[in-house]
Amino acid sequence: MRRIAFLNGRFLKWEDALIHAEDRANNFGDGIYEVVVAYHGKPFYAKEHIDRLFYSASQIELHIPYSPDEIMDIIDRAIREANAEDENSMIYFQISRGFAPRDHAFPENAEPTFYLTVKPFSPMPMEERRRGVKTVTYPDIRWARCDIKSLNLLPNVMAREYARRRGALESLFVKDGVKITEASSSNFFAFVDGKLWTHPLSNEILAGITRSIVLKLAEKLGIEVVERPILLSMLEDIEEAFITSTTKEIIPVSQIDDMKIPVGERTLSLIEEYQRLKEAP
Amino acid sequence: MRRIAFLNGRFLKWEDALIHAEDRANNFGDGIYEVVVAYHGKPFYAKEHIDRLFYSASQIELHIPYSPDEIMDIIDRAIREANAEDENSMIYFQISRGFAPRDHAFPENAEPTFYLTVKPFSPMPMEERRRGVKTVTYPDIRWARCDIKSLNLLPNVMAREYARRRGALESLFVKDGVKITEASSSNFFAFVDGKLWTHPLSNEILAGITRSIVLKLAEKLGIEVVERPILLSMLEDIEEAFITSTTKEIIPVSQIDDMKIPVGERTLSLIEEYQRLKEAP
Repeated sequence: MRRIAFLNGRFLKWEDALIHAEDRANNFGDGIYEVVVAYHGKPFYAKEHIDRLFYSASQIELHIPYSPDEIMDIIDRAIREANAEDENSMIYFQISRGFAPRDHAFPENAEPTFYLTVKPFSPMPMEERRRGVKTVTYPDIRWARCDIKSLNLLPNVMAREYARRRGALESLFVKDGVKITEASSSNFFAFVDGKLWTHPLSNEILAGITRSIVLKLAEKLGIEVVERPILLSMLEDIEEAFITSTTKEIIPVSQIDDMKIPVGERTLSLIEEYQRLKEAP
Repeated sequence: MRRIAFLNGRFLKWEDALIHAEDRANNFGDGIYEVVVAYHGKPFYAKEHIDRLFYSASQIELHIPYSPDEIMDIIDRAIREANAEDENSMIYFQISRGFAPRDHAFPENAEPTFYLTVKPFSPMPMEERRRGVKTVTYPDIRWARCDIKSLNLLPNVMAREYARRRGALESLFVKDGVKITEASSSNFFAFVDGKLWTHPLSNEILAGITRSIVLKLAEKLGIEVVERPILLSMLEDIEEAFITSTTKEIIPVSQIDDMKIPVGERTLSLIEEYQRLKEAP
């Protein structure tokens, strides 16, 4: 696999993907992004990611210089350029409002900057997944528009670093000291009283693609879903828990701060179903 | 005046200030910044700006690769490199956590990216200042750490653009529908009942350098200061109002949404004092 980049219409060596220091992504985080994975060279739920990119763009009035089909096409070409047709890979792409002398208001004549790259991707092995991962709680200090997948990720960076130092994979964001919204870069689910709980879609969480797949798989397995916030007061009642994201897929949570949680059969069934979906989307 | 940049230890033509697309500023807004103005080539309150840069850095555990004195020295050299010794100029600088393959957690071996540039700067003329500017209210949707001068500025961008489209210079951020915290890139002050009100320092506002200067000038002029939030319920009682920032200095506010406010003598006295300070800091 070769490290390549696609920048403003051209394929380059990754090292050569340079932007100006006054690109609006660099000064303001004025842009949006997506991460798609490709299993054996085949992008997984790419349409859903591209749709979400357009949603994010609409919320900040960012013009995307390509149609959804053109982006799909760029992803396919990038996988070929990277020689990743037979491998698992991760496609990262972001669009900023472009290069313009620094001023908060939208620039008049800037061209959006579209950057894409393809990286190697190895899903967490099943035996590791079965052990589950540790998570820690962290105050949800983010802005009020977490439904936009924007480049303003400093609180997520801080939350993830906080987790890493405590031997945890992710921080769970606790809003107003009361409820878990989601994790630093994944959605959070928990089985309570036999039902699968997760925070409802709102401006407080990202509408995860894997989240929506899990909701469908739960239905298929006859698991009752409750789209309501998991309160801190419910922690003791958690029977099983897991996090989801495009690159994490479904990872059981075996610990929240000092509290241990068993990795249970229902979570493992969902992982099994997800595995099947990956093989035959 | 020449457009120059200083990037990671070297002076360059501004056009050549290129960074990699996976600099953490570009993907996460993982960095901080400052804006200093220089009147006739002399940096104004640069020490205070540099101190605040170090405060911001400490809050996100970002290593600044220079001492405060070295940054002061770079600013002075940059003004000379730009041929701006006899002009008013604006020095923008930002530090990111550096170039590292994208991962939320802090990178282990990345060198911080330090970018600085010098731009022409023309303070708003006095006759324009005397007319005052329009402002509009906008929900304060920002994160919980507005005391950090970070590169996560998307809500500020959106608020400023909202203002621009309504013929206003700034948006005033209204938190929880109740109080004005500050403006999209300035602090907000209002005279109410003969006293000068402004939001207290907290995680909800930036500790403006011009804000702190104005507080001192108010004391000098015998104006009583109240560091408490200006509530929306107090709007009708506002006698005079103004915004402050390094590049705006002190600008009277003559309108908030549809409500007109007179540009008053006390605000003009503060502007006069500020003018004196610029001439003899």
